[in-house]
Amino acid sequence: MAERAAAEAAPKGPLILAVGSGKGGVGKSTLSANLAVALARQGLKVGLVDADIYGPSQPRLFDNEGVKPEAKDSKMFPVPSRHGVGVLSMGHLIEDGRAIAWRGPMASGALGQLIDAWWGDTQVLVVDLPPGTGDVQLTMIQKHKPAGAVIVSTPQDLALMDARRAMNLFEAAHVPVVGMVENMSGYVCPHCGNVSDPFGCGGVEQAADDLGLPFLGRVPLDLSIRTGSDAGQPPAAGEGPQAEAFLRLARQLVPWIKARL
Amino acid sequence: MAERAAAEAAPKGPLILAVGSGKGGVGKSTLSANLAVALARQGLKVGLVDADIYGPSQPRLFDNEGVKPEAKDSKMFPVPSRHGVGVLSMGHLIEDGRAIAWRGPMASGALGQLIDAWWGDTQVLVVDLPPGTGDVQLTMIQKHKPAGAVIVSTPQDLALMDARRAMNLFEAAHVPVVGMVENMSGYVCPHCGNVSDPFGCGGVEQAADDLGLPFLGRVPLDLSIRTGSDAGQPPAAGEGPQAEAFLRLARQLVPWIKARL
Repeated sequence: MAERAAAEAAPKGPLILAVGSGKGGVGKSTLSANLAVALARQGLKVGLVDADIYGPSQPRLFDNEGVKPEAKDSKMFPVPSRHGVGVLSMGHLIEDGRAIAWRGPMASGALGQLIDAWWGDTQVLVVDLPPGTGDVQLTMIQKHKPAGAVIVSTPQDLALMDARRAMNLFEAAHVPVVGMVENMSGYVCPHCGNVSDPFGCGGVEQAADDLGLPFLGRVPLDLSIRTGSDAGQPPAAGEGPQAEAFLRLARQLVPWIKARL
Repeated sequence: MAERAAAEAAPKGPLILAVGSGKGGVGKSTLSANLAVALARQGLKVGLVDADIYGPSQPRLFDNEGVKPEAKDSKMFPVPSRHGVGVLSMGHLIEDGRAIAWRGPMASGALGQLIDAWWGDTQVLVVDLPPGTGDVQLTMIQKHKPAGAVIVSTPQDLALMDARRAMNLFEAAHVPVVGMVENMSGYVCPHCGNVSDPFGCGGVEQAADDLGLPFLGRVPLDLSIRTGSDAGQPPAAGEGPQAEAFLRLARQLVPWIKARL
């Protein structure tokens, strides 16, 4: 009875929302960062874990590179950012340009350290997953079970093939896919203003339809999203159509999240 | 003495040329496929190993999906392609859309099976590495030491950060980086014909300069490269400027390769 009371009184950890893609380079890290900022703008307390152990990019995206996380009782505190989102990444711990030459158990151990940190009253932990379906993904779903996953892909066949493999992994582990996001469609030519699609358009919505999953929307291939990301200024923290693209995604996720808090 | 004579008489395996990037989605698989085809057009006997165990795309790029490799004495034969390049990939062994949910030792074992296959008189084995610096990369450099590595990146900062980490891994293992390739710069608007750079331009050449490495050239962001890749028709097998971009890279690598055969 005492045990049960303690468990009930103990703070429930944050709800984990994984952002995955299967394939790298489809904008997973950019989406994770901006989704976290956009969810915080909806009034939620949001943290972000960069689970891309070998290729961490969140410290650059959040402009907190070079800041080492503080620790107490061998647990880390999230590194604050200007946008109300605490962040933890291997990039905060390892020198720039240095390879993180680790086999699976080391990488899985690092993931545990980032997730089992002092997240305090954080309600939602957005986890930016690495590409693939290996050690980090398996440890994520087996040990730190996410409440749900958002899948991002570009519309091209080669990216969708890997997205299907990632969703297959979540499905097998009974982690619900909350929805799919299409990234990098609709590029506006800076010379003539006309739109074209270097990576195609519509493939992700079609795939979501085929799989009976919600389609959450499109994020365009946009110069200002790329330059803002490289400069540590998440577009979702600003105004205009780029911010709106991410805020629209966040607003769709808020009811799903609130129902689970 | 007898042992030494046998070792000397034994056929030398093919020279291994690794194609790496650190980050996914920067065109590593497309470059690997087209470089292999372009090297074969230069008269070399070329094979390709798809070491992207979790996200194999070479069977799609070479239009030999669904073909299972034959085997003898528990070693596989490469799967032929229309372009004179034999290919081995997890994609030839595993069902489409099914996650390859393996921890590191399984993935490393699979890599060994793809490389230690019946490559016959193949002179050069192009190895398409997965993103990251984990188990597959470590096994690659420790067990199947490449003669050299080609690094591909897009010009954006976030991709170059990961490219530096990958190069750091090769450097630490004394695998020479033969040169760097910039991918996805110079997009021609299909409406007005003007060029713009959704991912920036020049960053890779600058990085190569900074690191004292050869810059091998640029491959443009091009609709026909993407559609050709999705359709299993490597642009390097055709004519025109897209083929020329890859043939130019191959011609630069031929002397380096021939000096090591």
